[in-house]
Amino acid sequence: MEVAQVLHMNGGVGDASYANNSLVQQKVISLTKPIREEAITSLYCSTLSRSLAIADLGCSSGPNTLFVASELIKTVEKLCRKLNHKSPEYRVFLNDLPGNDFNNIFKSLDSFKKKLQTEVAGGIGPCYFSGVPGSFYGRAFPNQSLHFVHSSYSLQWLSKVPEGVENNKGNIYLGRTSPSNVVRAYYDQFQRDFSVFLKCRAEELVQGGRMVLTFLGRRNEDPCSKDGCYIWELMATALNDMVSQGIIKEEEVDSFNIPQYTPSPSEVKLEVLKEGSFAINRLEVSEVNWNAFDDWNALDFESERFESIGDGGYNVAQCMRAVAEPMLVSHFGEDIIEEVFSRYQQILADRMSKEKTQFFNVTVLLSRKD
Amino acid sequence: MEVAQVLHMNGGVGDASYANNSLVQQKVISLTKPIREEAITSLYCSTLSRSLAIADLGCSSGPNTLFVASELIKTVEKLCRKLNHKSPEYRVFLNDLPGNDFNNIFKSLDSFKKKLQTEVAGGIGPCYFSGVPGSFYGRAFPNQSLHFVHSSYSLQWLSKVPEGVENNKGNIYLGRTSPSNVVRAYYDQFQRDFSVFLKCRAEELVQGGRMVLTFLGRRNEDPCSKDGCYIWELMATALNDMVSQGIIKEEEVDSFNIPQYTPSPSEVKLEVLKEGSFAINRLEVSEVNWNAFDDWNALDFESERFESIGDGGYNVAQCMRAVAEPMLVSHFGEDIIEEVFSRYQQILADRMSKEKTQFFNVTVLLSRKD
Repeated sequence: MEVAQVLHMNGGVGDASYANNSLVQQKVISLTKPIREEAITSLYCSTLSRSLAIADLGCSSGPNTLFVASELIKTVEKLCRKLNHKSPEYRVFLNDLPGNDFNNIFKSLDSFKKKLQTEVAGGIGPCYFSGVPGSFYGRAFPNQSLHFVHSSYSLQWLSKVPEGVENNKGNIYLGRTSPSNVVRAYYDQFQRDFSVFLKCRAEELVQGGRMVLTFLGRRNEDPCSKDGCYIWELMATALNDMVSQGIIKEEEVDSFNIPQYTPSPSEVKLEVLKEGSFAINRLEVSEVNWNAFDDWNALDFESERFESIGDGGYNVAQCMRAVAEPMLVSHFGEDIIEEVFSRYQQILADRMSKEKTQFFNVTVLLSRKD
Repeated sequence: MEVAQVLHMNGGVGDASYANNSLVQQKVISLTKPIREEAITSLYCSTLSRSLAIADLGCSSGPNTLFVASELIKTVEKLCRKLNHKSPEYRVFLNDLPGNDFNNIFKSLDSFKKKLQTEVAGGIGPCYFSGVPGSFYGRAFPNQSLHFVHSSYSLQWLSKVPEGVENNKGNIYLGRTSPSNVVRAYYDQFQRDFSVFLKCRAEELVQGGRMVLTFLGRRNEDPCSKDGCYIWELMATALNDMVSQGIIKEEEVDSFNIPQYTPSPSEVKLEVLKEGSFAINRLEVSEVNWNAFDDWNALDFESERFESIGDGGYNVAQCMRAVAEPMLVSHFGEDIIEEVFSRYQQILADRMSKEKTQFFNVTVLLSRKD
């Protein structure tokens, strides 16, 4: 599996699209807003740059894609009013892998810009948006061309499935039964990928530039703890049930491994310190329920997104489907998809009725050192 | 009709896609290569910039999209070898309206970059590609951020259908029977649009920056001459035949007008002189047969594009379909499309067998004055 080819959220705007099943991700973006506000405020006040270059890495395609940019622009405009400054120019770079549905983003840009102009009293500075396709585990921007980098729920994705995980039988990610060599292989891949990421961004950011990164992660130091693995363990349960009923071959499940690592705060911290180009201004963990509707304050966002609350199992299965379907299809083919997610939904609903099920988010605010 | 919404080449890679029906446009790009070589060579030698920002406006989606960028990069790399310089960094901006199939371009970028690296002995400098959706009849890039602007077969498209052309009965563009107010309205719209284009690019280009623009145009000074109108007059014939047979309503054809203007060299020159920011280094006219296969040297390009030469009427109808289908569908609906192009193909084949049928290309090389 070539991750850069098959890792992308479901495109379009249909029932199984990421655009319509990204409420968890939106909730996470909403939770981490204070950190971004702190970061963009201190950045703007320290540089007073006339042109702000902002990159969103792993921007995906849907209502979340432009949300962070609009929020950052609004914060800067408020600062400009307060300080009696002229608005700066904004250059917003939307990055994701080439399989992302950029067409969908681009078609919404004109109305987004018009809306943003009307939402800010006195209007905003000139905005230039562009799409930058490519992996963030490599250089994506010219030297010292960025002021602010944001990434939410993307950096847990690895550049590839770790090598040497053939004996991870019955699992599709780390799990309680994963052998220690598999745990090591996953952690090694995370370390390699995240250090490359930091090195590349260190070259692309100006001195004093800020970076706010949120990982789907874990609180517990054990990489095989439920914190970071449970959601995939339950998908493995659905797949293993289908193996035992002869619908899928055992080898197929054994050879399927999700290219993901859900790091702990200390693992994130360690890589940043090792790489050395960034100061850590903040490092936090937050939680969000698997079923984002559970703890959502509907007044925060447009009401049309809450028309069908549905049941929790369905919501979570749809969310995971929007994220994982292209990878599953690439490995198992189209035919089993409905069945997998129907079983997964049942399993999720059962677990969610019996225990507290949460994603853990590790957010770090970094400054490019001089 | 909102031009920015409906003007785009047919997406994807199917039979009626622009990607598979853009040989005329490729031929034109090939014809104008010497002008681009002259422009990029004089630009590089006068600035010796370590970072070259190149924009292709109206880049479309298909084999032509990345062709110009690769050719420009190769020319600069050759110069670097000759002058014993280190390769510069390239920033390539691919611009088109938001309806363009950017996803298709982005998916081909990785293999394109790999191929380019192997084609140039010693490799090339770092390349950063991005997609910039939006009309070029407005600001699309930050101030003084570009060194080289290219646009081929895009600037004949107007920002909108001119106002006051309701009495252009029986025509879908200018034609021999167009009333003088209609001719005036089309020319006025061209003047307004092209002067806005020049003003925007003057702000976006650095001093000494170069611009190579190729219009689908005409040689003859009369805007209603066959030079620039015949291809659309024959499409109008197909539509009018369908009106007389009761398949389309007369009002529907009367209210359909193509947002295009095919300027003469002197009309292009006049606008450049009036706007005042650019010096004209070259102004040329070239021709290409409607059926690009006619005068194509197959050795110039990859042979797989010549598998099915087909007949001329078919080729030209497909080429025009790739360009005009979205506009026709938006106005007339899906149902009549097959019929229109089947009739158009017959009419084209008949005319092409009896007379010499050519497109005229007006190419201008401009430098941003100090």
